[in-house]
Amino acid sequence: MLNTPDATHDPDLTSWIESANDPACGFPPQHLPVCMFDAGEGPRRGCGIGDRVVDLLALGEAGLLDDAVHTALRQPHGLAGLMALEPAARMRFRRRLQELVTVPDSGLARDQGLQERAIHRQATVKLLLPVTIGNYSDFYASLYHATNVGSMFRPDNPLLPNWKHIPIGYHGRASSIVSSGTPVRRPSGQQAPPTDDGMPTFAPSKMLDYELEVGAFVGRGNRLGEPIPLAEAESHLFGLVLVNDWSARDIQRWEYQPLGPFLAKSFATTISPWVVMMEALAPFRLPARPRDAADPRPLPYLADPGNESSGGIDLTLEVLIRTPQMRTANLPAERLSLGTFGDMYWTLAQMLTHHASNGCNLQTGDLLASGTVSGPARSSRGCLLELTWDGEYGRPVPGSQRTPLKLSTGEPRTFLLDDDELLLRGWCHREGFRTISFGECSGVVLPAAG
Amino acid sequence: MLNTPDATHDPDLTSWIESANDPACGFPPQHLPVCMFDAGEGPRRGCGIGDRVVDLLALGEAGLLDDAVHTALRQPHGLAGLMALEPAARMRFRRRLQELVTVPDSGLARDQGLQERAIHRQATVKLLLPVTIGNYSDFYASLYHATNVGSMFRPDNPLLPNWKHIPIGYHGRASSIVSSGTPVRRPSGQQAPPTDDGMPTFAPSKMLDYELEVGAFVGRGNRLGEPIPLAEAESHLFGLVLVNDWSARDIQRWEYQPLGPFLAKSFATTISPWVVMMEALAPFRLPARPRDAADPRPLPYLADPGNESSGGIDLTLEVLIRTPQMRTANLPAERLSLGTFGDMYWTLAQMLTHHASNGCNLQTGDLLASGTVSGPARSSRGCLLELTWDGEYGRPVPGSQRTPLKLSTGEPRTFLLDDDELLLRGWCHREGFRTISFGECSGVVLPAAG
Repeated sequence: MLNTPDATHDPDLTSWIESANDPACGFPPQHLPVCMFDAGEGPRRGCGIGDRVVDLLALGEAGLLDDAVHTALRQPHGLAGLMALEPAARMRFRRRLQELVTVPDSGLARDQGLQERAIHRQATVKLLLPVTIGNYSDFYASLYHATNVGSMFRPDNPLLPNWKHIPIGYHGRASSIVSSGTPVRRPSGQQAPPTDDGMPTFAPSKMLDYELEVGAFVGRGNRLGEPIPLAEAESHLFGLVLVNDWSARDIQRWEYQPLGPFLAKSFATTISPWVVMMEALAPFRLPARPRDAADPRPLPYLADPGNESSGGIDLTLEVLIRTPQMRTANLPAERLSLGTFGDMYWTLAQMLTHHASNGCNLQTGDLLASGTVSGPARSSRGCLLELTWDGEYGRPVPGSQRTPLKLSTGEPRTFLLDDDELLLRGWCHREGFRTISFGECSGVVLPAAG
Repeated sequence: MLNTPDATHDPDLTSWIESANDPACGFPPQHLPVCMFDAGEGPRRGCGIGDRVVDLLALGEAGLLDDAVHTALRQPHGLAGLMALEPAARMRFRRRLQELVTVPDSGLARDQGLQERAIHRQATVKLLLPVTIGNYSDFYASLYHATNVGSMFRPDNPLLPNWKHIPIGYHGRASSIVSSGTPVRRPSGQQAPPTDDGMPTFAPSKMLDYELEVGAFVGRGNRLGEPIPLAEAESHLFGLVLVNDWSARDIQRWEYQPLGPFLAKSFATTISPWVVMMEALAPFRLPARPRDAADPRPLPYLADPGNESSGGIDLTLEVLIRTPQMRTANLPAERLSLGTFGDMYWTLAQMLTHHASNGCNLQTGDLLASGTVSGPARSSRGCLLELTWDGEYGRPVPGSQRTPLKLSTGEPRTFLLDDDELLLRGWCHREGFRTISFGECSGVVLPAAG
């Protein structure tokens, strides 16, 4: 069972790569996230362990990986070949990788020359987008987020009647997905007229926001016309990343009806570079969030005992900001919120099964994002729109309770300003297991194009 | 000027490929649409002339095309290399191709062996998707369509306040775009509860519709963060196809708020195989549709004299149906509507410029579709939802005036039934020029998955 811990999660496993054994290290040998990286010689497929990244193709070329994996690593489009492997082959890959970095006389441990070719310090490489993303779909699966935002955009009608039946989602823009660290230019766009009979304006967004999300990469796809039953959904998921779905709220509010968000989101979406494989998450699975007594039961195609017992993930998520003033004063980034992915109403498996329920063909490397992860507390709201309750710009919202943030430097923030850096972090922690990190998803806001 | 006829549009030009000279032939030497085809030996890049298709790479290998084009033809992803050419190189390509098929002693005309390798009968080849489509965006640019549909979905609020300011669009699903002739499976999906406090159902769609659209392929892209001024927009368009944006209206009505259509459309989108290059359309350009006195002027980024004078296209569009009963009786397909692309409120250039106005990076091979092309007359409505005014299924719509279609066979149609074939056709006609055809975009409806 994918969702049950096995010997690969044994907390006593240690690595001969010493940095992986530091209890504070988020990349222990139980983790083994994959990535694309560049150590100066072009894109390479890698695996994170301690403070190092291991070149996977170099392992394959040294004859240390089985043929199926070695072939997969030579496919184009980044990690696409690896993502398309059957779950059993993936599990063998995980076991083999773990063996190579933990057994003191493994083929990698005893080959100094290979280590020099294949093992790089993470601090010296550039991390890239992990795969060519064909299609990007974004969901809206947090009840807290949907209720909060709905009450601002549609005060009389916050949660629409379909929401508790459908994992609501929409198609996002794949071309503008960028890797962590890529600066993000503030978009310009149409904003609502100041009065009902006035003209809209076209100007740099004044309400630039982030959205804390979790993204899932599709592993094996399905054929057009052939839905994916919920019981099989997890076997089509390869792994997870953090997603910042940057959002221009003023553009969004004016454009989104009736066809949904478009230019308010398509200027950039940032993802973290390490893909946390589903196998690494087994110790951290949770029951799907229980429904309230008044909530409708999901329709049969969205209900399954496996999903109910372990469809959730205990993933802690943190958002931080570093303003130019903090950088100048050498202050660390400051936390804006802390939440958990366990608060989501719909599971990733339900999102994937719903997506394919009309026969839509999901493809290897497609990205499904969860929508903003918000919890019940103010401190766990996953975007500024919710944290500041609609900020200080825009048109008055009936009943609005605006609460601009005051940062520890004394700086106020309602939405992001130029040169602000926004960071997402995530980790899974459970007593009796090594903690695993999702790494970081960051981006600095650049001024609008001149 | 791209939009001004030149010597390549001279109606007196004839081809040594005789079928191209038939006045009823939609593929004269003034046209030269491109495609991907398979004559039994895998995908090839082609050009249509008369009833033939010419293998472009074979021409390149014979030394008959310039180096830039020959290199472009060897790029992966179908016609992507050709689409990415600079406009000047594309124009040279058009002139050279025309020379090869019109000059009686051209390198192709006098080489019998090359003709045998390079020229195929269209009737014997399979036409494929022309390019790997990275991102698909769908607009909503017909005022008649937006008003008609809005009055059914939102009777009290048909045309939203943003519509006349923004070329409204949304992201579509690229993976399920299929080539003409591919059967389309009826999707299943959630449909609204019969009463407000009831449960939705999950079942095969009972309101399967088509939408007549025109699609534009992006030629050269733009870099992330760098908008495309309207005056340059046309130089980023490569060419046009017909698009059938199949739509499940019952799924759409229940799912579309607040993030727009998702599974109601993502099960299939059919495009015609011949890409009509913008250069071929020069004689058929029209002024952008004039605004009514009461209409707002477009914001400056969507206004440009060139767009105003020739942003439109005089393209006639026809929709036909062939029911199983018609096939059995050997009857031809029957017309459902006839309209013109000249009726659109927004031009393709405005859609492209708006799309990139936030810095979103458009990429070679991206498809921008226009949204349903409907005109002012009932006979020019581009989908069944409009033709039958919401059909006979679904929940009652206040003020609905349902008018199910009666076909000449006596068969009624409100929405599409299994085994119905739906066909789109398009052509440009103007006195003093050869008529050019867009070919056909067809698909048969298969029963829902069992």
